[in-house]
Amino acid sequence: MQNELFIFNTLTKTKEKFTPIHPGRVGLYVCGPTVYSDVHLGNCRTFISFDLIYRYLLHLGFKVRYVRNITDAGHLEGDRDEGDDKFAKKAKLEQLEPMEIVQKYTLGFHDVMREFNTLPPGIEPTATGHIGEQIEMIKEIIANEYAYEINGTVYFDVEKYNKEFPYGQLTNRKLEDLLEGTRELSGQDEKRGRLDFALWIASKPETLMKWNSPWGWGFPGWHIECSAMSSKYLGETFDIHGGGMDLQATHHTNEIAQSQACNHKSPVNYWMHTNMLTVNNVRMSKSAGNGFLPGELFTGNHPLLEKGYSPMAVRFFMMQTHYRSTLDFSNEALQASEKGYARLMAAIKLLANLKHASSSTSDIVALEKKCYDAMNDDFNAPILVANLFEGARIINSANDGKETISLNDLNLLKKFMHSFVIDVLGLKSETSNSSSDKALQGAMEVILEIRKDIKAKKDFVASDKLRDDLNIHNILIKDTKDGPVWSITE
Amino acid sequence: MQNELFIFNTLTKTKEKFTPIHPGRVGLYVCGPTVYSDVHLGNCRTFISFDLIYRYLLHLGFKVRYVRNITDAGHLEGDRDEGDDKFAKKAKLEQLEPMEIVQKYTLGFHDVMREFNTLPPGIEPTATGHIGEQIEMIKEIIANEYAYEINGTVYFDVEKYNKEFPYGQLTNRKLEDLLEGTRELSGQDEKRGRLDFALWIASKPETLMKWNSPWGWGFPGWHIECSAMSSKYLGETFDIHGGGMDLQATHHTNEIAQSQACNHKSPVNYWMHTNMLTVNNVRMSKSAGNGFLPGELFTGNHPLLEKGYSPMAVRFFMMQTHYRSTLDFSNEALQASEKGYARLMAAIKLLANLKHASSSTSDIVALEKKCYDAMNDDFNAPILVANLFEGARIINSANDGKETISLNDLNLLKKFMHSFVIDVLGLKSETSNSSSDKALQGAMEVILEIRKDIKAKKDFVASDKLRDDLNIHNILIKDTKDGPVWSITE
Repeated sequence: MQNELFIFNTLTKTKEKFTPIHPGRVGLYVCGPTVYSDVHLGNCRTFISFDLIYRYLLHLGFKVRYVRNITDAGHLEGDRDEGDDKFAKKAKLEQLEPMEIVQKYTLGFHDVMREFNTLPPGIEPTATGHIGEQIEMIKEIIANEYAYEINGTVYFDVEKYNKEFPYGQLTNRKLEDLLEGTRELSGQDEKRGRLDFALWIASKPETLMKWNSPWGWGFPGWHIECSAMSSKYLGETFDIHGGGMDLQATHHTNEIAQSQACNHKSPVNYWMHTNMLTVNNVRMSKSAGNGFLPGELFTGNHPLLEKGYSPMAVRFFMMQTHYRSTLDFSNEALQASEKGYARLMAAIKLLANLKHASSSTSDIVALEKKCYDAMNDDFNAPILVANLFEGARIINSANDGKETISLNDLNLLKKFMHSFVIDVLGLKSETSNSSSDKALQGAMEVILEIRKDIKAKKDFVASDKLRDDLNIHNILIKDTKDGPVWSITE
Repeated sequence: MQNELFIFNTLTKTKEKFTPIHPGRVGLYVCGPTVYSDVHLGNCRTFISFDLIYRYLLHLGFKVRYVRNITDAGHLEGDRDEGDDKFAKKAKLEQLEPMEIVQKYTLGFHDVMREFNTLPPGIEPTATGHIGEQIEMIKEIIANEYAYEINGTVYFDVEKYNKEFPYGQLTNRKLEDLLEGTRELSGQDEKRGRLDFALWIASKPETLMKWNSPWGWGFPGWHIECSAMSSKYLGETFDIHGGGMDLQATHHTNEIAQSQACNHKSPVNYWMHTNMLTVNNVRMSKSAGNGFLPGELFTGNHPLLEKGYSPMAVRFFMMQTHYRSTLDFSNEALQASEKGYARLMAAIKLLANLKHASSSTSDIVALEKKCYDAMNDDFNAPILVANLFEGARIINSANDGKETISLNDLNLLKKFMHSFVIDVLGLKSETSNSSSDKALQGAMEVILEIRKDIKAKKDFVASDKLRDDLNIHNILIKDTKDGPVWSITE
């Protein structure tokens, strides 16, 4: 079914049929986190969205080289094109070596990604690990006369570039419009053009993170790292480049310009961008005080959260909105997702022991097709989820004896429900299988045996007391036609 | 008590009082893994030993900057001083990008370290992330005339260096003895002296991992990365450098030479080396077929293992041999450690609810001193463990009413037992605190309530049956003077 995959390309603003450069292989680059603070939830959404995309490409049988960088140096504050980078500043404040900060937040980022059950990318290159590659690329851009050096800092010449290539293509804007939104250059500015950006920045004596270069000691501008690393690992033109939509106007626009100026080629065939987060319909931001961290979301330790939500409930919640739509956090929506996630996982569990009949009352083949159609339509996970809920409904009905499923259909249902829920959506059971789990199974068997005796004796007082005592501890017993079953309600 | 710490220094072959360069601060560098295959158990022992050392230094109140590198490039096979490095070769075989291999095994290494409950180092620098620093250092060594370039490869001149500094100091060997163990140079050798080693290696056209340098495209020799990274993060002379004893003769000997030749200073005040592993008294090695991986040890999936051993049991096992002694793996020893670990953790648990008396029957103050004495004597963990077992014995006796402990002593005992077992030895409980754990607690409360009723009715048949049913599920109930307690026996 992989021939039918369509992807919305930010570059052309249309859904295009996906055709990889090398048949059967996909090169995928996603802009990763800047590791000088805790990863925020907007970033998590981007990485979880691309995890879904990565998983679906793998499911379709593609061999994917997935590269997601770690920005550990050279990320300037705002558009300030000179001086220390953020790490060096924070290091001085905290009396830390910048790489200690990098280590702390890289490990923290990996922890969060693990909790969300994302697959690690195949390569996680760091900016500091590719200084040489960045320098080589800048040398080439200077040689091609799209950049110039002033006092040890190298700037990209946007106006010159724009004479040959449309600079604002990714956001559909002309240079004149972009210039209008920029302040006039003052006498203090080194650079020639208002939109020119730094490829290499001369360090000051107090700069902590600096490297030697043909232009003296300094550090790379933020944009060049992604151009250098993506071309190193995926080639001068590769298939898919992703990131948050806030990166379109500057970072990705500059990536295209840098690669084009260096390699005379457009670097990316399909640009993909994830949308932003809101909380109760207000844009999530630190200043609005509604920007909770993943850890706060898991524990519920934030004024806006009624309770904690497990990583899988949050992941499932994110799957219920398309990656190009705004995702709105609210307690109601999260609690609905919690229930939906539990319902889907319960259905998967039931499915394992479901009995087949001679014929099917539902069209399972059509349901599978709808799942693929959804994902082939620009990875439309919410539509996929709706179809998986229909699958869960059929499973529950069949279990209750209200529907029937033929053997062939049952096998098909098992196959695609498992593939889409576990492999593609990346959901997993949140119960463990430890020795205490086994002990709990054992203890509950003993209790159900005692309950059977009590019931046999028609001792309703003892029976009610047992039920209530268990309820206190969040254990619920239900009688079904196959005997009593228990579950943890918390 | 930190003034009394003594460390065995490989450089002087004596136990020396530890005096850090900057009072209250320690710079610690440990040679980390080469990430082109799974981390082997010998490496794990080294990293767990230095985790103990790091933890004890932290416990003593030192502010420790702990650096452990990741070797992800430039590690030659044996003494072959030319051609591809290991990564490039494996990449070609596996049709992988070298950095994909690096990513896979770095993540695997971090997983194993997490299972062993080691604290992450403050900085984990990579060789590929410090190519510029290595080039700068090589330039300085050439400028100081301790290295020479031939055909794009730079060699360190060992004989010239040895005229001024004792090259084989770390292993107590003279140059003449070292030369005797080396083959004569042939006409094919570029280098001038038999012991000369490469600082930078010219790449061949097929080399995958290569960087630009003043000597053309190539990659760094293995030894230079640790010299460049340790001096960058810890200074030209720092406190402690550690690693496996197999690194003494070549890697660490060359590190000293490189740093001395570059900075005119001895780089390290205290060199520390961990000893090797044996299995049933045979040296562990791949070729002997007795080299199990951490994962195999945890699951028991190896012909030499009777069963799996948990990460904490293995960690505790390692603590029962001093880091400078050979550590012998055997099923008997591992099973004894399993029991020892459980005994120690059970005592810690009992300690929380232990009641005090008016006086003590054991000398708790003396016991604490013995614990510090052990660790201050070159981190003698086996002696520490023996003293902690004595603490566990006192706790059990006091719990059984056979000994008494005064309030002051009880508080002291709680403090240092917790510090040494949890903080310093780095042991943790292997039971989780999930919702199913809570449900198990609840279910067992219900069962103990039922048991109380049965006992009150003197229904011995029902009482015995309940005990047996629980035993089948590995749940054991014991009556103590404070009432019944239960435990999982598996």
